[in-house]
Amino acid sequence: MKTVYGLRTLLMAVLICGALPAPAAPPAAADFRTVDPENLVLIDTRYGQVAVELFPDFAPNHAARVRALIRAHFYDGLSFYRVIDGFVAQGGIGEEDAPAKDHPDEAKALDRWPPLKAEFDRKVARGETFTPLGNADPMAPFVGFENGFPVARDARKAHEWLIHCPGTFAFARDNGPDTATTEFYIVIGQSPRRLDRDLTAFGRVISGMQYLQKLERGDAEVDSGVIMDVAKRDPIVRMQLAADLPEDQRPVFQVIRTESKAFADAVKARRYPTSPFYFRKPPPVLDICGVPVAVKRVSGP
Amino acid sequence: MKTVYGLRTLLMAVLICGALPAPAAPPAAADFRTVDPENLVLIDTRYGQVAVELFPDFAPNHAARVRALIRAHFYDGLSFYRVIDGFVAQGGIGEEDAPAKDHPDEAKALDRWPPLKAEFDRKVARGETFTPLGNADPMAPFVGFENGFPVARDARKAHEWLIHCPGTFAFARDNGPDTATTEFYIVIGQSPRRLDRDLTAFGRVISGMQYLQKLERGDAEVDSGVIMDVAKRDPIVRMQLAADLPEDQRPVFQVIRTESKAFADAVKARRYPTSPFYFRKPPPVLDICGVPVAVKRVSGP
Repeated sequence: MKTVYGLRTLLMAVLICGALPAPAAPPAAADFRTVDPENLVLIDTRYGQVAVELFPDFAPNHAARVRALIRAHFYDGLSFYRVIDGFVAQGGIGEEDAPAKDHPDEAKALDRWPPLKAEFDRKVARGETFTPLGNADPMAPFVGFENGFPVARDARKAHEWLIHCPGTFAFARDNGPDTATTEFYIVIGQSPRRLDRDLTAFGRVISGMQYLQKLERGDAEVDSGVIMDVAKRDPIVRMQLAADLPEDQRPVFQVIRTESKAFADAVKARRYPTSPFYFRKPPPVLDICGVPVAVKRVSGP
Repeated sequence: MKTVYGLRTLLMAVLICGALPAPAAPPAAADFRTVDPENLVLIDTRYGQVAVELFPDFAPNHAARVRALIRAHFYDGLSFYRVIDGFVAQGGIGEEDAPAKDHPDEAKALDRWPPLKAEFDRKVARGETFTPLGNADPMAPFVGFENGFPVARDARKAHEWLIHCPGTFAFARDNGPDTATTEFYIVIGQSPRRLDRDLTAFGRVISGMQYLQKLERGDAEVDSGVIMDVAKRDPIVRMQLAADLPEDQRPVFQVIRTESKAFADAVKARRYPTSPFYFRKPPPVLDICGVPVAVKRVSGP
């Protein structure tokens, strides 16, 4: 029983401490917004379906590009060809991919999908629902939440960008800033914050991280983590936009409104945990990448 | 080719940015120490072998306990019964385990393995090789590395403790401080720093994190993440101490000496990346849980 209690109490710590959805007693329905199916990317892996919410306002051209790629079935049958444990899973056309074998469109890819202008950040506009985290951040002058996404702002609050946390969805690029074309990556490890504002990040995983964690890994020290044996790569079975599915076949997700009192209360409870589990109350400092943003799946197959 | 270059250059970012082993050009052999086989715990999962290095000086009684449990074959055939994506994988005797079915020793467990006195921290002793990270930390007055482990110290530098980073190995407990008995957990997600100095942490994964990431997950919002269907739990196939294996069957790992100039140089290169991949040089601030500590497997089956 001790162990059982141990679990229960460690759970309290989990709900307060872990990067997890909000505690079992949920906020009111009005505290959640429904994810726009035009922004809901569904990535089918052999382990399960991953759901990514796009935030197009941060990178309208990249969002339009990834929607176009998905609708052209560009990614279907390609792979997660570069997966580095604790860092990123990168998907698309990888080195060693044989176009004819792996993807009929590969030869045309460069023509069809020219390099995009970088969208590393955006101007702060009026009327945004930026909700400050409430403590200093080691890497940015201001951090907080916008529409459920972790966001950083510069010292003048003139520009803002999405933060690289576990689950962040972004486009890879070459050395030049304006060189992203089709490859995406998703963060699967400790937040690589130094990539912030230096790559175009415009989405986050809202469901299915555990399936990305099952992906076959490459060796970071060999071939830059690219899995050179094409047969060993886990496929991108299919990528779809929820908007392109019949309504009755769409998964529907709701995300807590990070501007709501319910979210503020959850953050406060996390900052000042009252669980008897804690002997030394932790410093009232939160990691922007460790604050849970509650997601509910409300319907779908 | 663009994508290929993209990989290569993103790789440079990876080697500098990712929570990864040191770059391909390795430090000299003298910059590495060999892991003591008495401190090398080998956890066989159905996906592959995980290697954990213990740091007994931080928790001598817990280290003695886990060695005794391993040598009693206590964990063999038990399971990772509570696995929460982005937080921890917890192993041992879980709720719903039927002693007779799952483990003959369970009934005797509480008698054989009485609760341990907490070893949340230790007094700072002379002659330790604490190497400061070199920048402020959001959660502790001082942080740095000792023997390859991330360590925090209090404001008076009187006490120190292991930091909860991805891969940290610790014992679970109940609400009381002195209640740990047999259950362990390993951090598999964004560093849950608020657990620092409130649980007894005394090891870290030096190889095989990707196998822990494949473990069957529980639902954090249901049964505190415990996988109630025992049949769905991934087993702890076997846990062994390398010291108990014939020498020719032991894996041998070497860890970079975090007090060496080679490590200091790697940290500096990480803090001030020179890769042309970066347009905005990131702030010269490192996350103690994001700094790679190089590990080499030098022999073994």
